[in-house]
Amino acid sequence: MMAFVPLNSHPNPQNVLVIGGGDGGVVREVAKHPAVKSIVMCEIDEEVVNACKEHIPSLACGFDDPRLTLHIGDGLEFLCSYPGQFDVIITDSTDPVVGDSDHQKSKDGPAMSLFNEEYYTKLHEKLTPEGILCSQGESMWLHKELIGSLLAKSRTVYPVVDYAYTCTPSYPSGQIGLIMCSKNPKTIFREPVLSWTADELKQYGLKYYNTDIHSAAFTLPTFMQEFLNTL
Amino acid sequence: MMAFVPLNSHPNPQNVLVIGGGDGGVVREVAKHPAVKSIVMCEIDEEVVNACKEHIPSLACGFDDPRLTLHIGDGLEFLCSYPGQFDVIITDSTDPVVGDSDHQKSKDGPAMSLFNEEYYTKLHEKLTPEGILCSQGESMWLHKELIGSLLAKSRTVYPVVDYAYTCTPSYPSGQIGLIMCSKNPKTIFREPVLSWTADELKQYGLKYYNTDIHSAAFTLPTFMQEFLNTL
Repeated sequence: MMAFVPLNSHPNPQNVLVIGGGDGGVVREVAKHPAVKSIVMCEIDEEVVNACKEHIPSLACGFDDPRLTLHIGDGLEFLCSYPGQFDVIITDSTDPVVGDSDHQKSKDGPAMSLFNEEYYTKLHEKLTPEGILCSQGESMWLHKELIGSLLAKSRTVYPVVDYAYTCTPSYPSGQIGLIMCSKNPKTIFREPVLSWTADELKQYGLKYYNTDIHSAAFTLPTFMQEFLNTL
Repeated sequence: MMAFVPLNSHPNPQNVLVIGGGDGGVVREVAKHPAVKSIVMCEIDEEVVNACKEHIPSLACGFDDPRLTLHIGDGLEFLCSYPGQFDVIITDSTDPVVGDSDHQKSKDGPAMSLFNEEYYTKLHEKLTPEGILCSQGESMWLHKELIGSLLAKSRTVYPVVDYAYTCTPSYPSGQIGLIMCSKNPKTIFREPVLSWTADELKQYGLKYYNTDIHSAAFTLPTFMQEFLNTL
């Protein structure tokens, strides 16, 4: 979902950047999209990549894709030095803070620099004029206030911002959010530009994503919708 | 969701039976529905009810509703002896088996009798001609085969059967399924008969349920949809 919700919200996602995602899962999924010509990935921790290659080959198989260029380093520094632009950028980071950010004492985590204003401004610069950004959007059960501040920040930069979530049993609370931003004011995230038949889903090897679940992912519980309406 | 998906799939759910649900949560939600005139609940374990009244009053407040009649006893025996019928029956049981039923050795749990053929036949008898049944439908991540057998069994008895799920962070894998059955062949579960405005949701105190999320709950990931298509 973190790959196909942004990719299928763009009419022709040829050049994709993944920041974080060291387990290889997002790259594996991005590589399934028939429009993708180039994937650049910037992961800060080479040991994560190597450990996943060794122990979780079913995720790490994405690293073998010939369209992939892997950089090891800090995401913000990479954005500052990289000369090109991307159609889609996916930020698959760890949490900015360690601990339940809404309800208990917490401290900055290693991905904190991926949640600040400078990073958000750089992401905007590195997107093509109709570019789409998808950022790891935490859990509405655990981080409602944090999500609110990220969405509010995003709305000052992008004409279209929306919030979706997907079920992920291995994540805290069983779900993970997606903060979706588009530079194209005509983007309607809950209506994917590309929709695929059952045969195409099978051909591309998609076990979770489909067009209906893309739209349903933007349907929020009342408490979260009410909260977002207050922003 | 376990209360409002079935209730809003029925045009006038006046008489409701809850089997299980000893924590009081389902009864609390059923009591919010303006059409409901009578709630009968049959829970096997009085100690669960008493413990929740003492320690989780925010859930157990439903037990104070004057429309509620609480029976303590076995659900199947209750169905065999109760003379009336219900518009909606909700089975909020524990799992039929203890352990991950699809992937490891498991054994029968205390709710096993709520998953057998006799119980399903009795439920059908106790529903009015347009009655709706909602049964605890396990997790698609953990119990796919069990869900398949329950749905296949239900399809031999009801003209309309569907599967939904809702996010529940405290449940294993973060979600719980709903097995939805209707005696009315015109029922389309993903299109609720009753839909409510934001003001009505607030008036009824609904923090999670809304009309859009009712429909979205029936949108399944590709792997689950493909599996159900094989049944």
